[in-house]
Amino acid sequence: MQASLLSLGAKPPLTSPQIRVKSLYTPTTFNDPTDSTSMAAIPAPKWAQKTITLAPQRRGCHLITPKILKEIGQDLSGFKCGLAHLFIQHTSASLTINENYDSDVRDDTETFLSKIVPEGRSAPWKHTLEGPDDMPAHIKSSMFGCSLMIPITDGQLNMGTWQGIWLCEHRDRATARKVVVTLNGV
Amino acid sequence: MQASLLSLGAKPPLTSPQIRVKSLYTPTTFNDPTDSTSMAAIPAPKWAQKTITLAPQRRGCHLITPKILKEIGQDLSGFKCGLAHLFIQHTSASLTINENYDSDVRDDTETFLSKIVPEGRSAPWKHTLEGPDDMPAHIKSSMFGCSLMIPITDGQLNMGTWQGIWLCEHRDRATARKVVVTLNGV
Amino acid sequence: MQASLLSLGAKPPLTSPQIRVKSLYTPTTFNDPTDSTSMAAIPAPKWAQKTITLAPQRRGCHLITPKILKEIGQDLSGFKCGLAHLFIQHTSASLTINENYDSDVRDDTETFLSKIVPEGRSAPWKHTLEGPDDMPAHIKSSMFGCSLMIPITDGQLNMGTWQGIWLCEHRDRATARKVVVTLNGV
Repeated sequence: MQASLLSLGAKPPLTSPQIRVKSLYTPTTFNDPTDSTSMAAIPAPKWAQKTITLAPQRRGCHLITPKILKEIGQDLSGFKCGLAHLFIQHTSASLTINENYDSDVRDDTETFLSKIVPEGRSAPWKHTLEGPDDMPAHIKSSMFGCSLMIPITDGQLNMGTWQGIWLCEHRDRATARKVVVTLNGV
Repeated sequence: MQASLLSLGAKPPLTSPQIRVKSLYTPTTFNDPTDSTSMAAIPAPKWAQKTITLAPQRRGCHLITPKILKEIGQDLSGFKCGLAHLFIQHTSASLTINENYDSDVRDDTETFLSKIVPEGRSAPWKHTLEGPDDMPAHIKSSMFGCSLMIPITDGQLNMGTWQGIWLCEHRDRATARKVVVTLNGV
Repeated sequence: MQASLLSLGAKPPLTSPQIRVKSLYTPTTFNDPTDSTSMAAIPAPKWAQKTITLAPQRRGCHLITPKILKEIGQDLSGFKCGLAHLFIQHTSASLTINENYDSDVRDDTETFLSKIVPEGRSAPWKHTLEGPDDMPAHIKSSMFGCSLMIPITDGQLNMGTWQGIWLCEHRDRATARKVVVTLNGV
């Protein structure tokens, strides 16, 4: 779905920065407020917000673009230009954007995270009451972050061809995860 | 304070994604501009921006949710739906969202950062003029990032029960830190 | 350019949090829609979006503030208060904000990234088809992230004196990189 946005343009020359797309949406036609026709033409800024609950996932990285689009796709279609914000309300899981095709990339990323943050007897953590995977989960959540902001263009998330939204679950026994989605635009 | 937002709903079943909250704020009543009553009903988009100066902190992670809310709480209350952006104007400190209860989590996160980024004689850095903690501080600032975006719902930061805002100070002898806060919504 | 924003104020005392700047932009004068003069005074929310193509860079960290400002500077000048969003449409490069002066900081950051993410024979990756630098590039892109949000104040990016925008190229043989820039404000 995102790929279609990119394929609109020819491959750019690789030599210099270029403007590819430009659109400026400004409701500047406020000057005749008695003309309801011109008022109707104003792209009124819109806000939409909903909380999505994602079912528990095993520890690791999971592609959730389809789930997110299923929840917000219809709302997205009403925005010509804007921004979509996703915010996971937890401190032991994270959201990131990465490769959407080969699941090995997700497995390797989990391998990296488990390697880089010590866990178990050799780990130096004081916060251990909630299990050996808890403190590492907190650290990983700050490494990748709890929120994403994605441009909206012509009613779609304007991601690159290979980009997808990942839920990274850092606990061994996860619970459901809540994501607050906020859309803003015209 | 954030907890109260979550406690409104019953615990969700853990089996499938669900829509918990949905709100769409669209000023679509532009069609009768001669009716001042209907115009007054339009939720006009608002912007607020201020720069907060945080006193110097010791190296480590610090919970600053109360300080931030003290500065922006009154402004926040005017937004039904929106986004709050926090931006730290420095390259040797960072902002992140993580656990708001046990201070051991903050201490362990500092332990991790100090362990993962080499410092002192064994470190391979070229940039050492400003002290052994300076280059590691720059790296940590990019690992955790310099900005946060948090959804606003019903006049409050819509974070999870256990989420708090952390200032991570990466220098040994810190100065005051400035955070630009921008609120946008209806 | 950003420095001029900071130099407006005197050095703050280092003892307590303070409000430095406060501005609230609210189009609240909707109450007399038949008066076109008052309507014209409303700071109408604006959106601007364009895609910038950056020429291929060698592996490492690159300061791109001048390139970005060259592309969006004129648009920025139309915003009194707002937010600028930059989104790189790739999974093997990243955007971050860090030191804008000494290029050693950029070199040292690349040294850190190459050290922290294993590459080559000793690396445990399953995803190796696209070369030994590919899987490490995906991991680095999630560590630093693919997007930035920067406050706009008085027509300029309101960054700190020493902050600059970096493109971090994680591939050995990079292609051009596309960045979607979205501006929103009044």
